[in-house]
Amino acid sequence: MSDINSSLPVITETHNSPFASLQPVSMTDVQLEDGFWKTPQQINQSITIPTQYELLARTGRLDNFLRAAGKLDKPFQGLVFNDSDVYKWLEAASWSLAYNQSEELRRQVDLIISLISAAQQKDGYLNTYFSLGKANERWTNLREKHELYCAGHLIQAAIAHFRTTRDEKLLEIAVRLADHIYSEFGPSRRAGTCGHPEVEMALVELYRTTGNKKYLDLAILFIDRRGRGLLGGSEYLIDHAPFRTLDHLVGHAVRALYLCSGAADIVLETGEQQLLKTLEHLWTHMVQQQIYITGGLGARYEGEAFGEPYELPNARAYAETCAAIASVMWNWRMFQIDGDPRYMELLEWTLYNAVLPGISFDGKQYFYVNPLRDDGNHRRQSWFECACCPPNISRTLAMLPGYIYSLSPAGIWVNLYAASSVNVKLPAGQCIKLHQKTAYPWDGRITIELTSVFPAESANDDLLSKPFSLFLRMPSWLDEDSVVVMVNGEPIDYPIHAGTYLEINSAWQSGDRIELELSMQVHYIESHPLVLENTGRIAIARGPLLYCLEEVDNLALPLSRIVIDRSCQAGVEYLPELLGGVKQLTCRARIDEIDPEWQGRLYRPYKRGSTQRRNPEAEIKCVPYFAWANRAAGAMQVWNSYQ
Amino acid sequence: MSDINSSLPVITETHNSPFASLQPVSMTDVQLEDGFWKTPQQINQSITIPTQYELLARTGRLDNFLRAAGKLDKPFQGLVFNDSDVYKWLEAASWSLAYNQSEELRRQVDLIISLISAAQQKDGYLNTYFSLGKANERWTNLREKHELYCAGHLIQAAIAHFRTTRDEKLLEIAVRLADHIYSEFGPSRRAGTCGHPEVEMALVELYRTTGNKKYLDLAILFIDRRGRGLLGGSEYLIDHAPFRTLDHLVGHAVRALYLCSGAADIVLETGEQQLLKTLEHLWTHMVQQQIYITGGLGARYEGEAFGEPYELPNARAYAETCAAIASVMWNWRMFQIDGDPRYMELLEWTLYNAVLPGISFDGKQYFYVNPLRDDGNHRRQSWFECACCPPNISRTLAMLPGYIYSLSPAGIWVNLYAASSVNVKLPAGQCIKLHQKTAYPWDGRITIELTSVFPAESANDDLLSKPFSLFLRMPSWLDEDSVVVMVNGEPIDYPIHAGTYLEINSAWQSGDRIELELSMQVHYIESHPLVLENTGRIAIARGPLLYCLEEVDNLALPLSRIVIDRSCQAGVEYLPELLGGVKQLTCRARIDEIDPEWQGRLYRPYKRGSTQRRNPEAEIKCVPYFAWANRAAGAMQVWNSYQ
Repeated sequence: MSDINSSLPVITETHNSPFASLQPVSMTDVQLEDGFWKTPQQINQSITIPTQYELLARTGRLDNFLRAAGKLDKPFQGLVFNDSDVYKWLEAASWSLAYNQSEELRRQVDLIISLISAAQQKDGYLNTYFSLGKANERWTNLREKHELYCAGHLIQAAIAHFRTTRDEKLLEIAVRLADHIYSEFGPSRRAGTCGHPEVEMALVELYRTTGNKKYLDLAILFIDRRGRGLLGGSEYLIDHAPFRTLDHLVGHAVRALYLCSGAADIVLETGEQQLLKTLEHLWTHMVQQQIYITGGLGARYEGEAFGEPYELPNARAYAETCAAIASVMWNWRMFQIDGDPRYMELLEWTLYNAVLPGISFDGKQYFYVNPLRDDGNHRRQSWFECACCPPNISRTLAMLPGYIYSLSPAGIWVNLYAASSVNVKLPAGQCIKLHQKTAYPWDGRITIELTSVFPAESANDDLLSKPFSLFLRMPSWLDEDSVVVMVNGEPIDYPIHAGTYLEINSAWQSGDRIELELSMQVHYIESHPLVLENTGRIAIARGPLLYCLEEVDNLALPLSRIVIDRSCQAGVEYLPELLGGVKQLTCRARIDEIDPEWQGRLYRPYKRGSTQRRNPEAEIKCVPYFAWANRAAGAMQVWNSYQ
Repeated sequence: MSDINSSLPVITETHNSPFASLQPVSMTDVQLEDGFWKTPQQINQSITIPTQYELLARTGRLDNFLRAAGKLDKPFQGLVFNDSDVYKWLEAASWSLAYNQSEELRRQVDLIISLISAAQQKDGYLNTYFSLGKANERWTNLREKHELYCAGHLIQAAIAHFRTTRDEKLLEIAVRLADHIYSEFGPSRRAGTCGHPEVEMALVELYRTTGNKKYLDLAILFIDRRGRGLLGGSEYLIDHAPFRTLDHLVGHAVRALYLCSGAADIVLETGEQQLLKTLEHLWTHMVQQQIYITGGLGARYEGEAFGEPYELPNARAYAETCAAIASVMWNWRMFQIDGDPRYMELLEWTLYNAVLPGISFDGKQYFYVNPLRDDGNHRRQSWFECACCPPNISRTLAMLPGYIYSLSPAGIWVNLYAASSVNVKLPAGQCIKLHQKTAYPWDGRITIELTSVFPAESANDDLLSKPFSLFLRMPSWLDEDSVVVMVNGEPIDYPIHAGTYLEINSAWQSGDRIELELSMQVHYIESHPLVLENTGRIAIARGPLLYCLEEVDNLALPLSRIVIDRSCQAGVEYLPELLGGVKQLTCRARIDEIDPEWQGRLYRPYKRGSTQRRNPEAEIKCVPYFAWANRAAGAMQVWNSYQ
């Protein structure tokens, strides 16, 4: 116990990961302005976070802390990992304190912190399932009981709370818990690692926040201990082989992706090349053989798991919302390692097409599973017994401003086009204020104004005129020839390469203005011939948004019989009343009749050309995939037959 | 307890189900001769049944009985329903006693019966999991513990043993158990029904064997009690709605199909029209929307369950071998109700293409799951922790001769073309011996000789000359115009209708000879356009045999890139050395190269016509699906691209 109280946090204000090409810009330095992401962020803070607080209370998740503190005589309620939902909510609420000054929210956050504080044991241990009556079972079933997983989420909540409030009380609780864990599982202590990875990321982040390297060491240990049979050796738990020997992702998708995120955090701090190679290999295999066009991950219901290469069923896609969030976290870390725009592009695509679909427009209903085809029975729900996804979406939306910009010695990187302002000191010393105005992804016009550029140390004129670079991400779906870039009203003739960052180096001054016009054409996407369900089918996208067909927009046109005429230009129309304002696409299509001879048959002798008959042409309407299932229940499909 | 000992079996020698159009011919009256089914039957009796006996012993399944009898101080071993494997083996062994006079087998059967006898409790209760230490938990968890399921399998084993040996000792044990169950669950006793249906079939069969109607009543009660929440109301257990209100099959496939089989047994005895309508509706829905081209059933790994309509993934097909066996049982019962040849045709197809693949040619390895496409990793195994399939295949093969013929007042029905002889008394009074010679399904020539026709009562010349009908099943895949039927060497000009029974009425006499030539052309099969994975794909069959491509026959031709030229006549060649002698099919095909641009990509902007490039033509080889995975491991597929 002696070393626990001695290690109060040593706060490191500015941790730069030594092996990162890019450094993050704190979400507290970024403000969303009126634009695409502002609405989800506002709904998240005004509706989702308060609603989830009520649900945490109503479902006994808060009572579990009272009980663990000895203040309530009731059995433990719910699943063994229910504490983590409270912590994820607390993380979401903490991030949102950066821009939400609501007294109510602050009170709720403080109340929960006091509950957590009271539930923490004298030795630092904290888990309400094991606190009363089961104290002797602590750490005895790492495979299934999620104790370290829950601890990781507490640590992340504590860091978020500290970052936005500079209040150390939750961080102190987290440090005591982390120290307790270190005393149990540190070097030369018992060999153990968690069935559900998560604590690895949290420990690295705690190292970054406190400067105490032992947390980093412990995170490394937890990764190193996998694949040695400590968890029984299952693929489901990614314990079938040492992590550095993996060549493709298997098992529970969220577990696998959280593990990769933690490993990437380690690379950022240690620069370990073998770990990096493993991660790059896993990522490449994933995007080449395992990912849905939505960015969703995890093909199988059984085990919520990755499937075989090209195993990507549409109606039975699992694609858990949490797996998409995990992919965002992993891509973010990989991007920081080497600045490869592929990671950022996948991050963006996943945010729009795999994370955002997880929550309804009213902010109160969630998808856990995200099919790409549905008959209308799959609807969002207000909560789940295993409620991992709702607060995970909430914290992702709350921290989202942190993904928009990055820094490097050369300058500032615009990763996401999103109406926002940022106030940040560049590594080279300049302090800049940058204002980004755009309706992206609805259109491709982006205006970036450097409202203020001045040296960090006042009156350093030399720095003031020192050039730095603005890096603008050129998505790979761009039509390179039609991109327009203007600086202070003058077109600049830089070569545009889709799938890279465009670097504009200049001795930028206050008032400089960059205008960017990205081509937002509709593109049709096909999938690898080994994805059997998508044979003869295309998906439709515009810019970074994947589109789908919903029955409610195409009444009397059975989706499965629509055959899109790919040669016709799709129409694009902004409909302010539709789904809170979306650009709807219209395509021409024919509607095939199923040969009446199929009536009552599943198989028949092959008949050439008699399968279907054409009907007159129709106009079909498509909405962004993230918007589906917000209106009347009905069929939906992403992959469509075409001619 | 008083009524238990009073109900010793009243054996009914000839039970004719009153609402059956057709009556079965006991497997004891049928002998397989040299032909297709003889080999599997011989392997079953000489290898499979002895091997399984060893496995029952080695895995503690027999020890559980010793333990229950108080003769072994060991914990219960294995899964809660492990008794059922012993009973299914005993049923298989008992049927095979009809044609296998091995002393060894008889000793093993007697030993197991003595173990069972010793394990039975005084009150008739019998289940080794609950016998010691858990007696107070009997019947407390019908949802999960399979007690009635195990009892059902004991009853079926007992009936098989009695039928082939006329020895009543196992039947007496079964009757005592059934009476105990009746005293627990009979009318006005406790409302309960089993989580895993099976006992319903067994009780109806026990009624048929003993004449005691209370077993039939109890079977009806067990069906009536479903869907009332007694099992928690889950679809998985088919407890979500009363059975008679179901309109499609859901939940665990084996459970659902066993339940249907039991319900069909009840219809045969009661003639209940509502139950029959439900069954017909479920069957129709199943064959129109839920069945694999193999006859396999159950699309989902999760819950080993039926999926949505047209949800039929190939590589991830579940298609449990036990579900195919259950389908055979259900179709057999439906066929007896009204003699509709569709049931018999599906039964035959399922035997060849869904049951037989479940066992290796060497008789020692089993498939539990039966995919229609595989990369070569799915191989048969010698046993399973949940070992339901191996003894289920064994008992199905052992009782198979009982499916070949049926009787009706009009005459005898030839359901399956299989080299065999039958010695039976027709309902109209004649005793006939019939001899069927054929190499079917390898070729379509069948010779049926009435080696003996005489009245049951001797010297009844009137009966001798009385005409009766021979019913020959004309499968629906026939080319009607090319079928040849000859009686005593003379072609007869009956109209042939594929998918019906051809009735030939005659005053048949000893020595009459019918020759039948069925067309055995290769046919290509396509599936309903809503089976998305099969878009642009065909399966290949010849007669009742489904074919597949195996890598071992098509080395250097990646199966997924084979495009069959459907317009070319397939070659058919008998290869006596291949797989114990099969007819191999050869088709012409082109091998498409995957556009090299797909390298490293899963999705891309659609490009017209550039997906694949043609290579020169190749000859591809196909083997019957039942024979797959008996040679070198490698890819396999049933559905093939075509041009």
